[in-house]
Amino acid sequence: MKATDTSKFPLVVIIGGGFGGLEVAKALADEPVDVLMLDKHNYHTFQPLLYQVATGSLEAGSIAFSLRKNFDNQKNFRFRVAEVTKINAEEKIVDTTIGEFAYDYLVIATGSTTNFFGNKDIEHNAMPMKSIPEALNLRYMILQNMEEAVLQTTKEEREPYLNFVLVGAGPTGVELAGALAEFRNHILNKDYPELQKEHMKVYLVDFLPKVLGPMSDQASKAAKDFLTGMGVEVMLNVKVQSYDGNEITFEDGKSIPTKNVIWSAGVMGVVPGGINKDVIERGNRIRIDNICRVEGFQNIFAIGDVAAMITSETPKGHPGVAQVAIQMGKTTGKNILHLINGEPTEPFKYFDKGSLATIGRNKAVADLGKIKFQGFFAWMIWMFVHLISLLGFRNKVVVFVNWVGSYISNNGGSRLIIRRYVKEAVPQKDEKSLAKPD
Amino acid sequence: MKATDTSKFPLVVIIGGGFGGLEVAKALADEPVDVLMLDKHNYHTFQPLLYQVATGSLEAGSIAFSLRKNFDNQKNFRFRVAEVTKINAEEKIVDTTIGEFAYDYLVIATGSTTNFFGNKDIEHNAMPMKSIPEALNLRYMILQNMEEAVLQTTKEEREPYLNFVLVGAGPTGVELAGALAEFRNHILNKDYPELQKEHMKVYLVDFLPKVLGPMSDQASKAAKDFLTGMGVEVMLNVKVQSYDGNEITFEDGKSIPTKNVIWSAGVMGVVPGGINKDVIERGNRIRIDNICRVEGFQNIFAIGDVAAMITSETPKGHPGVAQVAIQMGKTTGKNILHLINGEPTEPFKYFDKGSLATIGRNKAVADLGKIKFQGFFAWMIWMFVHLISLLGFRNKVVVFVNWVGSYISNNGGSRLIIRRYVKEAVPQKDEKSLAKPD
Repeated sequence: MKATDTSKFPLVVIIGGGFGGLEVAKALADEPVDVLMLDKHNYHTFQPLLYQVATGSLEAGSIAFSLRKNFDNQKNFRFRVAEVTKINAEEKIVDTTIGEFAYDYLVIATGSTTNFFGNKDIEHNAMPMKSIPEALNLRYMILQNMEEAVLQTTKEEREPYLNFVLVGAGPTGVELAGALAEFRNHILNKDYPELQKEHMKVYLVDFLPKVLGPMSDQASKAAKDFLTGMGVEVMLNVKVQSYDGNEITFEDGKSIPTKNVIWSAGVMGVVPGGINKDVIERGNRIRIDNICRVEGFQNIFAIGDVAAMITSETPKGHPGVAQVAIQMGKTTGKNILHLINGEPTEPFKYFDKGSLATIGRNKAVADLGKIKFQGFFAWMIWMFVHLISLLGFRNKVVVFVNWVGSYISNNGGSRLIIRRYVKEAVPQKDEKSLAKPD
Repeated sequence: MKATDTSKFPLVVIIGGGFGGLEVAKALADEPVDVLMLDKHNYHTFQPLLYQVATGSLEAGSIAFSLRKNFDNQKNFRFRVAEVTKINAEEKIVDTTIGEFAYDYLVIATGSTTNFFGNKDIEHNAMPMKSIPEALNLRYMILQNMEEAVLQTTKEEREPYLNFVLVGAGPTGVELAGALAEFRNHILNKDYPELQKEHMKVYLVDFLPKVLGPMSDQASKAAKDFLTGMGVEVMLNVKVQSYDGNEITFEDGKSIPTKNVIWSAGVMGVVPGGINKDVIERGNRIRIDNICRVEGFQNIFAIGDVAAMITSETPKGHPGVAQVAIQMGKTTGKNILHLINGEPTEPFKYFDKGSLATIGRNKAVADLGKIKFQGFFAWMIWMFVHLISLLGFRNKVVVFVNWVGSYISNNGGSRLIIRRYVKEAVPQKDEKSLAKPD
């Protein structure tokens, strides 16, 4: 089954419907090309709000959007739920779980997954949070462990269920720590009258000396102060040694009894099979040239988290954030059209719009160029930016209603255990690339 | 572990947090009793809107509500996630999956589950829709089968994925048929440009000669006409013989190739272990006296779908609808207090508020006493009644936003495949009572 069988236009295959893939497809609307998007899910995930799905503040359906529905009105767009197993560059074909598809231009926009740095016991026992199913799993784990905590009769038995250890103090760890602290401070005793807020502890651990590493020192310090003020124990310069599902131990010999370890300490690119090892950079990312083309190919691009554009200005590539993927996607869409039309291509240039991270119910930190501020106003900006970025008008309204409700009631979220959680092995088999992370 | 260990008040244990159980607990607020509710889920399900979760129009979190959160402000209320395995009436103890609990008064409000009438191949292959996990499973099945349909190359291969057979033309079957017809007529070709509406067929099957059996002939006829007008094939006086997962066959020898059979043709009470067989009526319901007390006991009540109050007026018991459970719950709460206070009890009297069923996006049928009407105005009433009945202000707002959005756009719902569906055996082991349905 080759998707080009009946097509007269050049066929652009996009692997992945994340921030980058969406922009490529949009840039090709109404152009004389056929677009085929492949994704293992039938929806786009708004990853910046995954942590709110994990804590039950938002429903999964509010931050995910059907890829088919998103492109209902784009005539040259086709979609398939499929995982790419191998790229055959010589034949210009991708092998997938549902058969093979031919392409004229290929865009790898597969994103990243959790990096456990080869630590198998952590990978097996800690919870990652990079996808909707993982965020839901995490939600059910937290709520089930609350129910378990209520059943325990001694402090020693109860502790592991109520100690939360978040490893990695990037935006995910910081935002999750804030949300869990809000839960502890405002909801725990209401929902579980048997438990007091003193029973629950939230630890945020990082081996670096600061939280929100890439942000300004000012933002970093404010975030740490906000977290500490809410009762989060911030542990910096601390390396995790192992985690057996019941106790996490650190390299300094200390340990914490806990059944809740959430790992957001690193990511690695999800590289499809068939990509040569010598174009793989640190963090399992594919080396690309200044128009996002994979080194050595004329018609294969890589964008976003899975790509690394190594230049003198960006010796480690660009940061793994949505804006990089979005901007690379836009440029790549345009450049594919330029190539088809025999026009000169445009080099990619990243415009850094700044960074935001939220802490708890009504505080955030913002680094917008030289302007840095923290607190309530930063949180208003954070809300606004995230609302306008969400796909779908109804999602915006529903999320807004939820946030206003949570702000007023201090008791947001639905906190339902729809399924018992299962620890899912991540990365999954098909996500594992031939190239290994360093 | 006995919950009464530290209690000085009479302990009321309520099994089940459905419409009936909720009302019992509410009626006991601020009274000198201790209330313990047990449910296998930590949430209340608003069953009348389950079909909208199945079709992706609403998120599960919009029609379910945390039982703990619902009783945040009721001081004498405790909750445990647990399934009751056996009632030991002599010792006044219930055995559960998390240990035993003592009671002074016990309320069985366990509701009903799907009745396959002993047909094992149908039970194994057809999808029930009586709970949130089942509705989500159904959603994922529908969407996955759409994705499969797109991959097929011939009409014969494609047909089974796009034939939907709904068995049972009660409110669930009728409302699901309407929702699927809307999907077929307005969304199918937008989301799946490879498929035309002629490719998809919705069949509604019942062995009775009318749809919405218990409603008026006028409502029944209008509902059938609405459905037929939307392209649903209504098959009455037809009995299902078997279903092997690929083809459903009827007693008249006809058959339909389909991978989508949804079974809402019957329910049976979920009776906990320990209840004597000779108080079990048709449909696996527990025979109760005129104050909802289980025959032969002074302190055990049964209410709602699991109960049958057999009188000359109600020779088959009351209908299995939310209003019966709600009204029985209120009366039972009051009567428990009367018994504690040595006061005379009040007999249960059902006040029939009428019946509503919706068909598609903007039509419904209503039997409100002698007033019967159908169409758009009935649909407005249907919307209003369901919105005010939903638990939680935010749920009301979110559902309202979704409905208005769907009405305007004709393209509502999120249609995400969050997990691959699995056919879950129903009823589950612990739900199986010692008594068998007839």
